[in-house]
Amino acid sequence: MARVVVNVMPKEEILDPQGKAVVRALGRIGVDGVSDVRQGKRFEIEVDDSVSREELERVASTLLANTVIEDYEVVEGE
Amino acid sequence: MARVVVNVMPKEEILDPQGKAVVRALGRIGVDGVSDVRQGKRFEIEVDDSVSREELERVASTLLANTVIEDYEVVEGE
Repeated sequence: MARVVVNVMPKEEILDPQGKAVVRALGRIGVDGVSDVRQGKRFEIEVDDSVSREELERVASTLLANTVIEDYEVVEGE
Repeated sequence: MARVVVNVMPKEEILDPQGKAVVRALGRIGVDGVSDVRQGKRFEIEVDDSVSREELERVASTLLANTVIEDYEVVEGE
């Protein structure tokens, strides 16, 4: 049994209103020096050894990310 | 200018209906061997050198995570 992490982030060219809202809130609580925030999703997945890398990529691209607007990365052994 | 990542995940003892929904969907698309999925948030933050580690922890604990139900970790230089 191993842990796999899938990170899903909005593509660079996609507006990220949630991240922008965080930047504005940072200013209000007195934190300067933050130029950009992007908000995405993190999935922590417990898999057994029967699940291949190809299967994980398929899960990430079809089920976890909307690849029209989001990029993903599959990180094993984090 | 450096990138800092803040990972926010539901605490272990908190039910995670989004993650459970992913597990059920995996079964429907024919992926067995996944025992658990937890869904959280990933923030990618661009900060300059004036922002201290303590400030980042404060931002994570007050603005990005709801520490009643979520754990967070601040990862520098990812």
